[in-house]
Amino acid sequence: MDPRVKEHAAIVADWSTSIEAGDQVLIECQEGGEVLAEALVGEVGERGGQPLVVFTSASASRAFLKRAPAKTVEAEPLHVRAAMEESDVIVHIRAGANTREMSDVDPAMRKARRKANEEIREIRLSKRWCLTMHPTQALAQEAGMSTEAFQELYYDAVLIDWETFAKEIEKVADRFEGADEVRLVSKDTDLVMPVTGRTFVPSIGDHNLPSGEAFTAPLLEGTEGTVHIDLPAIVEGQEVHGLTLTFEDGEVTDWDAEKGEGAVESLLETDEGARRLGELGIGMNRGIDKPTRNILLDEKMGGTIHLALGRAYKECGGENHSAVHQDFIKTMDEGSKILVDGDTVQRDGAFWYEESF
Amino acid sequence: MDPRVKEHAAIVADWSTSIEAGDQVLIECQEGGEVLAEALVGEVGERGGQPLVVFTSASASRAFLKRAPAKTVEAEPLHVRAAMEESDVIVHIRAGANTREMSDVDPAMRKARRKANEEIREIRLSKRWCLTMHPTQALAQEAGMSTEAFQELYYDAVLIDWETFAKEIEKVADRFEGADEVRLVSKDTDLVMPVTGRTFVPSIGDHNLPSGEAFTAPLLEGTEGTVHIDLPAIVEGQEVHGLTLTFEDGEVTDWDAEKGEGAVESLLETDEGARRLGELGIGMNRGIDKPTRNILLDEKMGGTIHLALGRAYKECGGENHSAVHQDFIKTMDEGSKILVDGDTVQRDGAFWYEESF
Repeated sequence: MDPRVKEHAAIVADWSTSIEAGDQVLIECQEGGEVLAEALVGEVGERGGQPLVVFTSASASRAFLKRAPAKTVEAEPLHVRAAMEESDVIVHIRAGANTREMSDVDPAMRKARRKANEEIREIRLSKRWCLTMHPTQALAQEAGMSTEAFQELYYDAVLIDWETFAKEIEKVADRFEGADEVRLVSKDTDLVMPVTGRTFVPSIGDHNLPSGEAFTAPLLEGTEGTVHIDLPAIVEGQEVHGLTLTFEDGEVTDWDAEKGEGAVESLLETDEGARRLGELGIGMNRGIDKPTRNILLDEKMGGTIHLALGRAYKECGGENHSAVHQDFIKTMDEGSKILVDGDTVQRDGAFWYEESF
Repeated sequence: MDPRVKEHAAIVADWSTSIEAGDQVLIECQEGGEVLAEALVGEVGERGGQPLVVFTSASASRAFLKRAPAKTVEAEPLHVRAAMEESDVIVHIRAGANTREMSDVDPAMRKARRKANEEIREIRLSKRWCLTMHPTQALAQEAGMSTEAFQELYYDAVLIDWETFAKEIEKVADRFEGADEVRLVSKDTDLVMPVTGRTFVPSIGDHNLPSGEAFTAPLLEGTEGTVHIDLPAIVEGQEVHGLTLTFEDGEVTDWDAEKGEGAVESLLETDEGARRLGELGIGMNRGIDKPTRNILLDEKMGGTIHLALGRAYKECGGENHSAVHQDFIKTMDEGSKILVDGDTVQRDGAFWYEESF
């Protein structure tokens, strides 16, 4: 086994989820991530936990969604719920053999399945949970990189001293905490988001690994302006490019995409919450030094921000409910600014405490 | 996807487990069997069932058993139990990437884990359940065959007209039903097993796929004589060759093995039930035309019988309790006889109703 896989598994078990004796640990693993699941089972066992690996492959999901009657797609899987309820820790391993495997599945069926699984998702979020990834060939391909180069980028972002990095992330979160509004300014973008009373959460490698961001949930109402998303996103298995979103009083009232319009439309129609922001995040992980078209990595990239439509995380005090949580990432480089109550805290991608500011 | 995989999955869903709308279906899948699991997910969905795939790889089990403290190995995984309880149908897919993966695991740990899972096994047996297999390269290697040849043998045994074959198996079960004793005679073997009041179950591809056997559970007491097992068996990951078992009043009182003595010793010491017969089976599937060192196939081979030490199946009226159920297979060819209350019902591998008898 690649020693990095074992090291990764140990970070998940200790830093991210603090596994200890007696923990029931449910490991959800996509195809291609089996080696990390196997390594995690060993780490869980060593710490006295009970592992259960659930295999969730995109081709199986596709077969299910293409062949099951709508009534079945809309029904909650009771055994999945039972296993989730009985678990203390949930680790989800993103991997995959083809990132476009779901591209020919009816979006209505995908939406229905997301709704069927909504309570199960809530149960998961009430546990100690960690979303991580295994750098498969398909993910390297998506990033436009060789597998070796992609693995190097990935492990540069994951196998780091999380204790030291966590302190820096907490410093940034503290700077935003207590503010009334955050404003993003750059080419094609001027967006004001009210955040009064919200919490800025330092994401330090617990719920997401890798992580390295400070995030919050804007208020349900009051977000105004336009944001241009320059990095591509994968929405419902389809590529979305050059998305511009315009908000009025918190809701998307106008939008345009150079590519992937159908997916954006389906996303926005999921429910009312899908048209409101659930998250504003500030990426800080400089191990991720270029976009990989992988949201888990790209949203953490140093010098980026991301906005999510849909479900807000409760730990921010967020109130937006939705069956979806779709992130979009934007680079904040040359000419960009982040303002907190009018003060510039990041300019051209550099934070106030950095020499290059 | 190999069309045979899809056909196999459809037989599991229809013939073996009669999946219908609303069924919660738990699919346990060993590594290398993912493609069959994926096919099954589609079949389950098509019939209105909810699939959940649990991934059980030997290398993960090995890592767990080598690294977990004894207390953890001895504890029941509560989330596994919860998922099992909530399921209507359990399909277990045997596969694997290395049949000897468990060969360097402490047998005491394996035994402890079996005990920890004993109630979960009972729950599984109370559901509609099917044990099947996916013909991986490792299983072909174990059989001493090319992957292609092994797949051909496998699908010859699986992709058949189960309705017609079931009638033949039922005829054989009926011939044994109501008997007081079954006697096996061949070179090095003369074993008498009392079966008064027991049921002979026709195994027609429901609980095992492939199947093709009639089986019962001998009485707890009264089995007398010696049986020589000429085919190799894998016991606790180790190969056992040339096993001879001697029974007195139902219990193994003497034994000898040319190879794998340690594994046999550990097996017999599991508990009291491990020293008594839990099963006598008559193999009838002529699609399996040579031994493959795979118990699921070999025990169904036309012209063989098998005996299991340990747990008896309740549907036979069996009373033996144990944490193990270990099968051993013996060929009944030239010079062999099976007698039912003194009447020869099989001679040189041919049944009474066959022309070659």
